[in-house]
Amino acid sequence: MKSWVRYKALQGTTRFGVIEGDTIVEYQGHMFDQATPTGMVHALTEVTLLSPCVPSKIVALWNNFHALSAKLGKAIPTHPLFLIKPSTSLAGPGDPIRRPLSYTGKIAYEGELGIVIGKRCSNVSVADASDYIFGYTCVNDVTAGELLNQDSNFAQWCRAKGYDTFGCIGPAIATTLDWTTLHVVTTMDGVERQNYPLADMVFSPAEQVSRISQDMTLLPGDVIACGTSLGIGSIKEGARVDVTIAGIGTLSNTLANDLNRETPCP
Amino acid sequence: MKSWVRYKALQGTTRFGVIEGDTIVEYQGHMFDQATPTGMVHALTEVTLLSPCVPSKIVALWNNFHALSAKLGKAIPTHPLFLIKPSTSLAGPGDPIRRPLSYTGKIAYEGELGIVIGKRCSNVSVADASDYIFGYTCVNDVTAGELLNQDSNFAQWCRAKGYDTFGCIGPAIATTLDWTTLHVVTTMDGVERQNYPLADMVFSPAEQVSRISQDMTLLPGDVIACGTSLGIGSIKEGARVDVTIAGIGTLSNTLANDLNRETPCP
Repeated sequence: MKSWVRYKALQGTTRFGVIEGDTIVEYQGHMFDQATPTGMVHALTEVTLLSPCVPSKIVALWNNFHALSAKLGKAIPTHPLFLIKPSTSLAGPGDPIRRPLSYTGKIAYEGELGIVIGKRCSNVSVADASDYIFGYTCVNDVTAGELLNQDSNFAQWCRAKGYDTFGCIGPAIATTLDWTTLHVVTTMDGVERQNYPLADMVFSPAEQVSRISQDMTLLPGDVIACGTSLGIGSIKEGARVDVTIAGIGTLSNTLANDLNRETPCP
Repeated sequence: MKSWVRYKALQGTTRFGVIEGDTIVEYQGHMFDQATPTGMVHALTEVTLLSPCVPSKIVALWNNFHALSAKLGKAIPTHPLFLIKPSTSLAGPGDPIRRPLSYTGKIAYEGELGIVIGKRCSNVSVADASDYIFGYTCVNDVTAGELLNQDSNFAQWCRAKGYDTFGCIGPAIATTLDWTTLHVVTTMDGVERQNYPLADMVFSPAEQVSRISQDMTLLPGDVIACGTSLGIGSIKEGARVDVTIAGIGTLSNTLANDLNRETPCP
């Protein structure tokens, strides 16, 4: 198992590599295709981690856990139900979550498993899907919850989840992960808020990749956010949300306390 | 007013330029920023037009025309209601619309005006929005209509409108357009199906750019599809849909008659 990261080293350039203990072994080429070591090694303490990949889109699932589905009283879907978070929503580990200037309502965290696509992928079978999965990362699928049903005729999923910095992913991509045994643990300022088993998923990662690849071509670096389960809640200004999955690590993001920055346009 | 196009010339490389009569005057650099003529001129008949830009996302509006809103009995929205069509949905003028292998239902055309963003754009005012609009193009916002409400708990907008080739744009980007006087005319196999005035829009292009730029950063080349009005309908296999807006031109796409290609994955 490798744990891939992207980072800025002291010189400021963007690099990528593999975590080994307290260091990053730097690689060159393409992360998803025959990357080779450069010979450089960085101490983890001397780099700034970036989002581990740069998705062209984040496909985010709703209602993909039996426990949450039961709590909401919703039928189990027969196909993954998803929205698209744009590339501009991307945030990496340690990046602030920024409140939209035009939104004063609650902002929710949603800790999730993320699937990172490694190869262009269209109409693949469940059996072949694992060939297209490069690895797994943590996701905080941040949501401006009060917008979702603001218009009774149209659920505003893409708007509520598409704001800049609302697509937090990282800190690393684990290339091998037995997700069936793992939990997603979300804490806010150190207090546990979510702790749910990935084995409770409705559509497994392979099923998601197969089904969604029949809806659209998935590109290298694209992320599928597998949906969340019980325990979502709102983030206070200044609070830090940590999403932890054993084998991947902890994704930490804080809701910036900068409401006094410039005002929105009329 | 300039009319910008992207194209493949005989040599097969991708180029861009400005239409002048029956020719294209080739430019180099960045279409949106101080492009300069190369000195080359191509006959329109000897090139293959491509989508005039390559959006990172297409933001597609629903319920943005008073006439359709009234027909559907829906309230006028107080903010643009939108979904995101991914970059992989892009198709250019003349490209076939491909039926998804996994979908046997009706496929609808929706003729629309498209706004092409020219500059990175976040939290801009209505007054400043025109500075960020590079120009206007035609859109066929193709939709797998029977999927929209297949799950009663979640309207599948991104899925129904996000398939590869379902985001048809072109043939050109007109940099100056008095949209207030123009109609969108959609024909299928030459028979008029839509003919509606853009003056009936709920949110004007400047209002759309301003409002949506408060929801997400818009990037150069991104397209906002302004929504459709009366007269949408389904496309038969082999039928050609033409979307015409005076000053831009006619975007033509045919629903490919190739149902016998490979079968979908289980």
